[in-house]
Amino acid sequence: MVEHNGPDVKFVNKYCPSSVSSSSASTSSSSSSSVREMNILATLRGSLSRKYPQKNGEVLSAQYGINLLLVGLALMLALAYQGPTVTEETVLAFLSTLMLMQLLWMICYVVRLERKLNAPPERDANAATTWIRGGLTLLALLSLITDAFRVGNFVGYQKCVSPVLGVYPVVHAVHTMSQVHFLWFHVKDVIKRYETFERFGVIHAVFTNLLVWSNGVMTEAEHALNDHKRRLSAVGYFNFTVWGKGNTRLGGLYYLCPFNIEYHILVSVLLFVMWKNVGRTLGQCTKQKSASKSPLLKCSGDGPFLLLGPALGLLSLASSITVLVIYIIHVEESLEARHAAISMFYWFGIVILACMSVSGAVGLIIYRLEDWPMDTTPNPSRTLDSKLLLGSSIGSWLVCWCSVIAVAGAKNSPIYRWANLGYAILLVLEKCVQNLFIVESLYRRQKELKERGADLHATRNSILNPSHGNEKIFAVYDGIINHAYESPDKHCENENQTCSRNDGNVTHSSDHGMPETPNRQRQVLKNIAIFLFMCNISLWILPAFGCRPQFDNGLEEASFGFPIWSTVLNFALPMSLFYRMHSVAVLFEVFRKI
Amino acid sequence: MVEHNGPDVKFVNKYCPSSVSSSSASTSSSSSSSVREMNILATLRGSLSRKYPQKNGEVLSAQYGINLLLVGLALMLALAYQGPTVTEETVLAFLSTLMLMQLLWMICYVVRLERKLNAPPERDANAATTWIRGGLTLLALLSLITDAFRVGNFVGYQKCVSPVLGVYPVVHAVHTMSQVHFLWFHVKDVIKRYETFERFGVIHAVFTNLLVWSNGVMTEAEHALNDHKRRLSAVGYFNFTVWGKGNTRLGGLYYLCPFNIEYHILVSVLLFVMWKNVGRTLGQCTKQKSASKSPLLKCSGDGPFLLLGPALGLLSLASSITVLVIYIIHVEESLEARHAAISMFYWFGIVILACMSVSGAVGLIIYRLEDWPMDTTPNPSRTLDSKLLLGSSIGSWLVCWCSVIAVAGAKNSPIYRWANLGYAILLVLEKCVQNLFIVESLYRRQKELKERGADLHATRNSILNPSHGNEKIFAVYDGIINHAYESPDKHCENENQTCSRNDGNVTHSSDHGMPETPNRQRQVLKNIAIFLFMCNISLWILPAFGCRPQFDNGLEEASFGFPIWSTVLNFALPMSLFYRMHSVAVLFEVFRKI
Repeated sequence: MVEHNGPDVKFVNKYCPSSVSSSSASTSSSSSSSVREMNILATLRGSLSRKYPQKNGEVLSAQYGINLLLVGLALMLALAYQGPTVTEETVLAFLSTLMLMQLLWMICYVVRLERKLNAPPERDANAATTWIRGGLTLLALLSLITDAFRVGNFVGYQKCVSPVLGVYPVVHAVHTMSQVHFLWFHVKDVIKRYETFERFGVIHAVFTNLLVWSNGVMTEAEHALNDHKRRLSAVGYFNFTVWGKGNTRLGGLYYLCPFNIEYHILVSVLLFVMWKNVGRTLGQCTKQKSASKSPLLKCSGDGPFLLLGPALGLLSLASSITVLVIYIIHVEESLEARHAAISMFYWFGIVILACMSVSGAVGLIIYRLEDWPMDTTPNPSRTLDSKLLLGSSIGSWLVCWCSVIAVAGAKNSPIYRWANLGYAILLVLEKCVQNLFIVESLYRRQKELKERGADLHATRNSILNPSHGNEKIFAVYDGIINHAYESPDKHCENENQTCSRNDGNVTHSSDHGMPETPNRQRQVLKNIAIFLFMCNISLWILPAFGCRPQFDNGLEEASFGFPIWSTVLNFALPMSLFYRMHSVAVLFEVFRKI
Repeated sequence: MVEHNGPDVKFVNKYCPSSVSSSSASTSSSSSSSVREMNILATLRGSLSRKYPQKNGEVLSAQYGINLLLVGLALMLALAYQGPTVTEETVLAFLSTLMLMQLLWMICYVVRLERKLNAPPERDANAATTWIRGGLTLLALLSLITDAFRVGNFVGYQKCVSPVLGVYPVVHAVHTMSQVHFLWFHVKDVIKRYETFERFGVIHAVFTNLLVWSNGVMTEAEHALNDHKRRLSAVGYFNFTVWGKGNTRLGGLYYLCPFNIEYHILVSVLLFVMWKNVGRTLGQCTKQKSASKSPLLKCSGDGPFLLLGPALGLLSLASSITVLVIYIIHVEESLEARHAAISMFYWFGIVILACMSVSGAVGLIIYRLEDWPMDTTPNPSRTLDSKLLLGSSIGSWLVCWCSVIAVAGAKNSPIYRWANLGYAILLVLEKCVQNLFIVESLYRRQKELKERGADLHATRNSILNPSHGNEKIFAVYDGIINHAYESPDKHCENENQTCSRNDGNVTHSSDHGMPETPNRQRQVLKNIAIFLFMCNISLWILPAFGCRPQFDNGLEEASFGFPIWSTVLNFALPMSLFYRMHSVAVLFEVFRKI
């Protein structure tokens, strides 16, 4: 307990120095004098070191990060106008500077940590699983290929372009490699030393990645606009030739950009969790989890059942790639082929979204029937996941409602009119159901941890019940919940006791000798998760690689005008892409957890 | 304690039915059998009533609200294009329907509450102070005048306009009156019955107000655009006549609209706090506060000191009104007068922002020197306040950084070029400092509550300290912190004890017989708060009534182009106005609290 006591006395002292001394008031007089001495010492130490209060450190660093982002956005907006003020070189130079600063901070952090080998930082087991980091590494590799292309491109055109165009990909490649290394070994760290400085470092990293993401999104939007114009000119609407810097780009890059974009946004999410964890006091169970880690994919025993989900998922994946190829080919042909391609896309979407909604609903019903216990331990990573899902749904919901209004008020009626309506409504429904399913899954307790964790559970409930005397404590500081004060001895003692008492439980059926039913339900849930996982990949692939009928169908453009509609799409599509990628990551977590 | 026990056993049961029975594990066997029976009964009751889990209720209602907003936004975007799909009548009919639905819900809520007179709901003392509600009533009255104008306008033009234009102001007036009534008597309620239904009702009210706000903002933006064009035509750039429905509007309405807009956004903030409070279990101190309420403005004894702040504040208010009038007159005159007016605005802004930054910084330094204790009790209202301040700063920060880039890259150099740069940078700085000051003030413990609240404090600390046996409990469910289990007897007993022990405190200087120093510092802080309060009113008045040099100075337009720049402004200015109004409300709270 000494290890826990140390930092926490300081913790108290930082926030409410007056209260440390008064805390001895409610005890009997036996140990009060020594406690008081300790407290006074701690208060003195706090006054001398004068740590900047946590809340202010948070606000200050958040403001720094936001302003960094806004400077970058302002530069990009000026670039988008293609006015005289800002050129692409300015933006790339700005981004390179930020990345170099982040590199410097990461080196500082690692070096300082190496020096204190005897006191490794605490780690938040929930922060970023091995799978997420593995996925990120894959995206980073594809990102590096993009950089290699860019460097090659620069070498070829060396004489006629600015050197910044050569420096940027090199800096980006170095940044990518060191960042992946950093994420593998330090993203779980809970920073407790030099808090204010590290807070700035982490938030700088978060917003640097967010800016690189924004830059990628802007480039993509420009690309999509050019595609749109080219397609319109292909079906004979008007003449169009790509002009300016578009010529110097390699065509192959186009198919790698989406991975680079997703890489940066996922990194900022992970780093944001790290930022939230700065100065946090971890609960026992959050640390425990890493020790009692579950083995790789625990579904080895239930192989035959896990078939329908993956099979249907693979089917959807294959058919979406087919749809993508057909769409891209036909949308540039004649007007009839174009309409047929758009129509095909919508019908395919309706089928896949209907399947997803139904499977999500089945999952929710199973949860309703089962009444599994909820997991309510504080977990910044999970809170962020649910908020991001809800937040990033907004983009495509807005597009959907715009489509509904456009279809309802359309003057002309192309063949895909009502398919568009159905697609829009189903998309809203599907995201609602999927969000509910994911949030519910995230907040359920892990099956195999239930028995192991039953004692912890009992602890929390005995705390709720005022008639029990107990020493377990939950304390709250600045919204961070601190329950690191479980005494480990009592913890172990209780284990057998609580497990035997579990029989008194009514709804908890798995303890009644009926392991079959919940296992089957678990199988169904696993199948649903893997199916949704693959469907989300499919629905990410389609818009990421150029299948964007919202640009091509013309209905919304007639109702909203091209400037408003393209602004809406440029705002909504990146969010929608992020939503799919993030769902993929979270659904994989859900799949492993069930 | 029986009163508390009832709902909370249900509370446990709703989330983790299995754990209720196991909660008896850690007690000794003396009372375990009766507790177990009670628990089983509670579990059964829970299974039968099958309440929808809180987390899902939250997500579901949030999704409903967001989609409501997006439908409205989509309609307004279509209206902004002035295409064939959506007319103003459609939008007004949609808004009227939403307001009528909200009316229906409010009636249901009040009637159902009246029936249960014997069990009034708990109340969150922090939710909305009398002052805020008073301010809102004032805004509502001005809003009603707008409605009266509109009805009169409709009667005059009855024959040539749609009846919806007459129905809307009537519905709006009824809605405003009943909503103010509702806010006065029910906004503090903590809803515990029919949670899921009421959650939908409250979120519906939140987003209805947000939509009416968006509608107001859109109308204002259109107005500003017309103003801009009229001014340009006045100084001879091009010919312009206002067309369409603008003609049927009354000129006087223009000066009342800003109040109506602020009314709706403030109402949505208050109702959002009510939504966050649904199903929450209040801490003892949150309830207590309302009982031991402080008297009206407690600064009666320290009158002479409270002079500099209000005096300077009034000066800034008066001069800003002068600047407003001069600006509006001169900006439509010759090109030189226009440039002089813009220049004057920027220099005035630089002076006032510099004063605000300095006073905010002084306040922060006082806090650093004083080391007052932090107040860390859970308080959704306060959390929301700080998040909203930070969030709504983003708008004007973006405008500022755009200005910086525009000034840096400008090709021509009008007289206000560098003043614009200084203004932009100072604005960023001022908002940073003010946010820090407000957040720090909000999280400080109230001076006069310190002694009274010391026992509560002690309680919290004895909980932190694992060596103390105690019956106080903090428990966490779904992120909601439950510490309603203080035994009131012990509470009173401790009071004297803790106050006498306070002497052991080192940094807490007011207990050492030096009441003079902190009082003087308190005076300085009070002056700062009132000065910032009035400055924020000044800075709200200027853009709200048409002093928007960002439209008129032409620098940013040259760098970003009119479409991008007007989009940025239409997004940022409403946020900036909300920021000022919200700061005013929060600074008044801060002033009362210090």
